Amino acid sequence: MGKFVIERPVLLLNEQIMQANIERMFNKASSWRVNFRPHFKTHQSEYIAGFFRRLGVESIAVSSLKMAEYFADHGWKNILLAFPVNLLEINLINKLLKTTNLSVFLEDQSVAEQLNAKLKNKLSVYLKIDAGYGRTGMKIENTPQILDLLAKINKLRMLHWMGFGIHAGNSYHTSGKENISKLAGDLQLKMVDFRKKIESVYPNFEITFGDTPILSTIENLAGIDEIRPGNFVFYDAMQWKMGTCNFSDIAVALAAPVVSKHCYRNEVVIYGGAIHLSKEFILNTDGSKNYGYVSKLNAQGWSSPIDGAYVKSLSQEHGIVHLENDTCKLIQPGDVLAIIPIHSCLTANLLGRYTNLQGLEINMFRY
Amino acid sequence: MGKFVIERPVLLLNEQIMQANIERMFNKASSWRVNFRPHFKTHQSEYIAGFFRRLGVESIAVSSLKMAEYFADHGWKNILLAFPVNLLEINLINKLLKTTNLSVFLEDQSVAEQLNAKLKNKLSVYLKIDAGYGRTGMKIENTPQILDLLAKINKLRMLHWMGFGIHAGNSYHTSGKENISKLAGDLQLKMVDFRKKIESVYPNFEITFGDTPILSTIENLAGIDEIRPGNFVFYDAMQWKMGTCNFSDIAVALAAPVVSKHCYRNEVVIYGGAIHLSKEFILNTDGSKNYGYVSKLNAQGWSSPIDGAYVKSLSQEHGIVHLENDTCKLIQPGDVLAIIPIHSCLTANLLGRYTNLQGLEINMFRY
Repeated sequence: MGKFVIERPVLLLNEQIMQANIERMFNKASSWRVNFRPHFKTHQSEYIAGFFRRLGVESIAVSSLKMAEYFADHGWKNILLAFPVNLLEINLINKLLKTTNLSVFLEDQSVAEQLNAKLKNKLSVYLKIDAGYGRTGMKIENTPQILDLLAKINKLRMLHWMGFGIHAGNSYHTSGKENISKLAGDLQLKMVDFRKKIESVYPNFEITFGDTPILSTIENLAGIDEIRPGNFVFYDAMQWKMGTCNFSDIAVALAAPVVSKHCYRNEVVIYGGAIHLSKEFILNTDGSKNYGYVSKLNAQGWSSPIDGAYVKSLSQEHGIVHLENDTCKLIQPGDVLAIIPIHSCLTANLLGRYTNLQGLEINMFRY
Repeated sequence: MGKFVIERPVLLLNEQIMQANIERMFNKASSWRVNFRPHFKTHQSEYIAGFFRRLGVESIAVSSLKMAEYFADHGWKNILLAFPVNLLEINLINKLLKTTNLSVFLEDQSVAEQLNAKLKNKLSVYLKIDAGYGRTGMKIENTPQILDLLAKINKLRMLHWMGFGIHAGNSYHTSGKENISKLAGDLQLKMVDFRKKIESVYPNFEITFGDTPILSTIENLAGIDEIRPGNFVFYDAMQWKMGTCNFSDIAVALAAPVVSKHCYRNEVVIYGGAIHLSKEFILNTDGSKNYGYVSKLNAQGWSSPIDGAYVKSLSQEHGIVHLENDTCKLIQPGDVLAIIPIHSCLTANLLGRYTNLQGLEINMFRY
């Protein structure tokens, strides 16, 4: 790591690790012969987008229209809003359609009809399919409902139906490569079955498929045309603990100054709280909440996690780090610790910028 | 509520409710004859600070030096950083001391000595006392440790000792007026006892005391010189459920567009996720997580919460609202719901701005 001054919490970005993560997923997409549409909601940064651009990536996914606008302003032309389209943003949709190939997720007939009435240019749509997550979309088993909506959408002249969007967010409720692979296997059977049922009526369509845990874990995935993972660009403690990445694949860490220590209870206080890390947590094996793992800064960026150390609680700007053995004595106020975030998407969004290991500040979209 | 267009999530601010909250706490401080030092970390906005300024408030608390700088730039001169001072920000401390009466919390001898060596102007300090919360500070029962640090600090010529800072954050682990009053009573005994022990050696000092739950609940608090509550300006679902405010005292709500509905499972999907509400939750009586209550927009702002409705899960930009009875049928995509945040400080920080009920956008500090 270069020599530069850290005065307050910054999100350190190891670009080398990030680049390796990007290339690994890019190569996977190539070897599977599917389109690679990285989800930019995790990093939200044109600088980081450049790493994809240099590989030849042209299509991206985003999680809001404002984020689509940010990337469109930076020259991205093929943007999928991987979110059920929000009717109230019709003006921004119409604006974006003037310059970009925007597509959206759709799952509701009345929304489709209202959209159709208000669109000034044709909008590409993917029907959102729920493959078990239970968040958005029509149930994959409910072919009649899907075919019914599809028939109706195909009559709406301002909508151009592209295919189906599937996100297996339930993979986040799974853990271990074996279980995730099993989930992916079940999902694949469902998708192949679904494709068969639909293909008899509609021979040409695309399936765009998301989620970092499955796409990081499996070696093969038949029946899809496009992948759109997001989190893999940084990974985080949650992915590491799920077994979908190695610790050494995690590309971001919060540099947090130590402001106080209470060794009689094995704790140090860091300047780094809920407005930096978010209140996302995982559970330790003893059932206690863990808001982040703790590493030391070093020449390469940050070390392996300190044994037994974790962020045990967060206030707005405070974090309390639990330590074991004699570690507390070795840490002083004025030191800087590296906190491995539980959920890097939320941490990046909160920080609003990155600092790479040479000390360069990297901007991101901020709404 | 005035007629204005809501296209995407905004944090609605009912200024009338906020003003009443501010005046109630201001009057409490007056009747107790203690200094009122509102904690501006909750709202982080000079526009809202104006409501305090117009009441004659001159002293404020903040949770970061960057926030201190923002308010100093807007003319605030008496600013307490209610946070253990971060040695790495010495340059900003020295800068702020040129124009403001800045004070900080201190709890560590080595920090005191290093600060003293680097300060260019005298800095006012409050020793941080832990009255049971276990986050920061020296234990209130440990008078010898406190007196020892105090004697050392009084020898450091760049530090000007003001008194003690106490924050009873453990009140957040309590619930119900009765329990909070009991906690406050115990705390008061500790503080009176502490004051007696210290006064024999140091007759003149101030105790500055924080936290919204206790200060909202109790009618009397002896033994303190200053109050510095923060959250009371907006309150939120957590305070309401703790019994420290009424629902009608909550001054902010997230306006969130409905993007999809799944009435077969009694759910609607809103554009409003973890990057708007934060992942702070409370537990429903059945043990399920609750990320926000759900109201309808109306002429006065928003309604009482819809019976049985709550935000059951959050993704980055999605929220899933659980509904009961036939409510789902009455809600359509394109409607806007008002979500009562669990923790208004975190929600405000995430949104980065407010919209009042006339549709005026109100800026806040963003770092």
